[in-house]
Amino acid sequence: MKCEILSVGTELLLGDILNTDAQFLARELAAMGFTMQHQGTVGDNPERLREAVEHALSRSDIIITSGGLGPTADDITKEICAEVMGIPLVLHEESLQRMLDFFSHRKGGMPETNRKQAYLPEGGVVFRNDHGTAPGCAMEKDGKCIICLPGPPRELYPMFNNFVKPYLSEKSGMVIISHNVRTFGIGESLMAETAGELLDMENPTVAPYAKDGEALLRVTARAENKEKAEELIKPVIAEIEKRLGKFIYGIDVSSIQEKVVELLKEKKMKIGLAESCTAGYIAKRITEVPGSSEVFDCGIVSYANRIKEQILGVPHDAIEKNGVVSREVACHMAKGALRVSGADIAVSVTGIAGPDPSEGGKPAGLSYIALADKQHVWCIRFETGRSGDNREYNRYVTASNALNLTRLYLTGKLTAEEAEHDFD
Amino acid sequence: MKCEILSVGTELLLGDILNTDAQFLARELAAMGFTMQHQGTVGDNPERLREAVEHALSRSDIIITSGGLGPTADDITKEICAEVMGIPLVLHEESLQRMLDFFSHRKGGMPETNRKQAYLPEGGVVFRNDHGTAPGCAMEKDGKCIICLPGPPRELYPMFNNFVKPYLSEKSGMVIISHNVRTFGIGESLMAETAGELLDMENPTVAPYAKDGEALLRVTARAENKEKAEELIKPVIAEIEKRLGKFIYGIDVSSIQEKVVELLKEKKMKIGLAESCTAGYIAKRITEVPGSSEVFDCGIVSYANRIKEQILGVPHDAIEKNGVVSREVACHMAKGALRVSGADIAVSVTGIAGPDPSEGGKPAGLSYIALADKQHVWCIRFETGRSGDNREYNRYVTASNALNLTRLYLTGKLTAEEAEHDFD
Repeated sequence: MKCEILSVGTELLLGDILNTDAQFLARELAAMGFTMQHQGTVGDNPERLREAVEHALSRSDIIITSGGLGPTADDITKEICAEVMGIPLVLHEESLQRMLDFFSHRKGGMPETNRKQAYLPEGGVVFRNDHGTAPGCAMEKDGKCIICLPGPPRELYPMFNNFVKPYLSEKSGMVIISHNVRTFGIGESLMAETAGELLDMENPTVAPYAKDGEALLRVTARAENKEKAEELIKPVIAEIEKRLGKFIYGIDVSSIQEKVVELLKEKKMKIGLAESCTAGYIAKRITEVPGSSEVFDCGIVSYANRIKEQILGVPHDAIEKNGVVSREVACHMAKGALRVSGADIAVSVTGIAGPDPSEGGKPAGLSYIALADKQHVWCIRFETGRSGDNREYNRYVTASNALNLTRLYLTGKLTAEEAEHDFD
Repeated sequence: MKCEILSVGTELLLGDILNTDAQFLARELAAMGFTMQHQGTVGDNPERLREAVEHALSRSDIIITSGGLGPTADDITKEICAEVMGIPLVLHEESLQRMLDFFSHRKGGMPETNRKQAYLPEGGVVFRNDHGTAPGCAMEKDGKCIICLPGPPRELYPMFNNFVKPYLSEKSGMVIISHNVRTFGIGESLMAETAGELLDMENPTVAPYAKDGEALLRVTARAENKEKAEELIKPVIAEIEKRLGKFIYGIDVSSIQEKVVELLKEKKMKIGLAESCTAGYIAKRITEVPGSSEVFDCGIVSYANRIKEQILGVPHDAIEKNGVVSREVACHMAKGALRVSGADIAVSVTGIAGPDPSEGGKPAGLSYIALADKQHVWCIRFETGRSGDNREYNRYVTASNALNLTRLYLTGKLTAEEAEHDFD
């Protein structure tokens, strides 16, 4: 069944507010198995609103509007929808009574203007508003349905969850299930090439997404129930795992830091940090995860060489000889962080965030990332490939690579042979 | 001139991502004086996208699309728009070269699939992408114009500000100048109340915005040239400064951390950090600012009490007696950070990020923030007022308040009388 969202409000057209209702409704309706093909936004203008409602009805079975149910004269959504449907609005005593009660404690009681909110489509369904005065409503005719909901999220979300969802689930015979296969270390295009013909499937669908140096594949199936949908997805995810195996860090995991914290908890291990160019970004991301205090005690942001030497014990010569952005310094920083933090493993980063290259002419975006446990020290050289003013991107992606190196260690993918050297 | 925003992406229809592009574009375009009457969202489906583009062209002069410029086969926005306009796509050598350079460091170079991103409307305008591979473009025909922009906000925002805005202001025959008056420590509603009738002006317009615990006023003027626009703005900003003085931390400053780094540079001072609940967030934000290495050497992320004692020298008793989230511990942390970092001032934070309250029943969102120089220690108690699962918000806003305390110190607003105690 085709469902369409129509947001009403001049404040949306002018960008004064962010349309969170549309995302909320879209996610809920897609999950219920409705086909979502259009979203629209119009202002509180009768002609344009009427045109938008008629256009939506011409291509969709269910229209859900948000906004324009207020008490003022420019709140006209319900009125226009009823007019287009050819359904009169009649006084709904129960809603009026709720509003009178709502205002009873206020001086002067209910303002007359609010009375219009109690006029609702004849023979329609009324959705109670537990967080405001405007009731929602559904009106049906000729196999089409319009549902009008209030704009404020704190009124719309609970009204949808408590009343609209049950009403709609009767209409929909389908469920949609999605799973996100998250990868690291492979670009979107190469990932898409590897997924190849899987991207052309119809049910389940496989769609590539890229964000901030990561790429993921979303597998989405439609079926009459959850079990059948999962059945459709299973073999496809298995095939994706076969093709992208080493790049996949999790399925339905929210971030690489969440995965790292989860792995550290499993292994009852703690991690220490020594950050130079990322300067707290890794610590910040690890501690985004609730419960990270179980696995993280201490991070040193050693932005100056002096601090690298004094707190982390990086030998002055190592910096002199190799430059501060070097394999040697990264390894010393990791070992120093292991000592200082008393953790089981420690990760360090030294690099050039940009915009300018280093004095030695090393490019912005270059970093050395080291990981030390009590036996070995591993080190990788990484380049974001974005010189110039990409400071935020360079720092974020460099931090992501440090987290990914940790993931590889915790999943046994770093061998003693690959180690830079033993822990001396 | 009527302008319409068309967002393209199945992930929007399914509610996987929030449409922040639409709000950004709507706000900018409205401020430039374009008439905004419609916003639409469609998926990566050729027929429906074509229908949406045609429908938009039938009622608006300028269509701005976001999304669907990626390298994969389901990225079709530019192709469909050019087709509807009857304009062929031709290889744009300069864009291709930029992409080849972008991929030059990667194994295997540029994936073949990316090549399509370099095909752009014949005779159109190309907007360089400084933060990704997909160039934007504008195509004109019969007095209508379609502008295609990439979906990721970190690519779209700078592309719009740097290239599309100048292109559009030429069309509108007007120059639009905006200045942002940034405040800290005053809520949006109180700020708006204080601005009062200024918000009703027509040219310049004064619009309040709030985000992540900060509020700003944007003053936007329209005139035939830059000088005339600035002339219109000047007295209005002067009036705003008169009304909001102490809350204003900068005009056209990009962030409070940028202001803090600027002040530290002016005073040739360095700052040290000791972070518990913010856990690197303050360090990360200070070092977002290019050149921050002049003013920042060292931060200690002391997530565990053991680290607060061992590295920062917080007395065990102070934690035992007052709890770790306390005025006393915050002051000791700041003094410890001053010693360890060798900086001129040090800022510390100890608090509860959430979602759960502390064992002692202290609410999530509560923090103590201390600042020490070599004579005194100041300390403030701060509550975000958001208990429960607002971890990111609590950490961000707490970090902002630590930065604002630093700003107040550096602008001479913290007196010795207000100090918690002398530096002992």
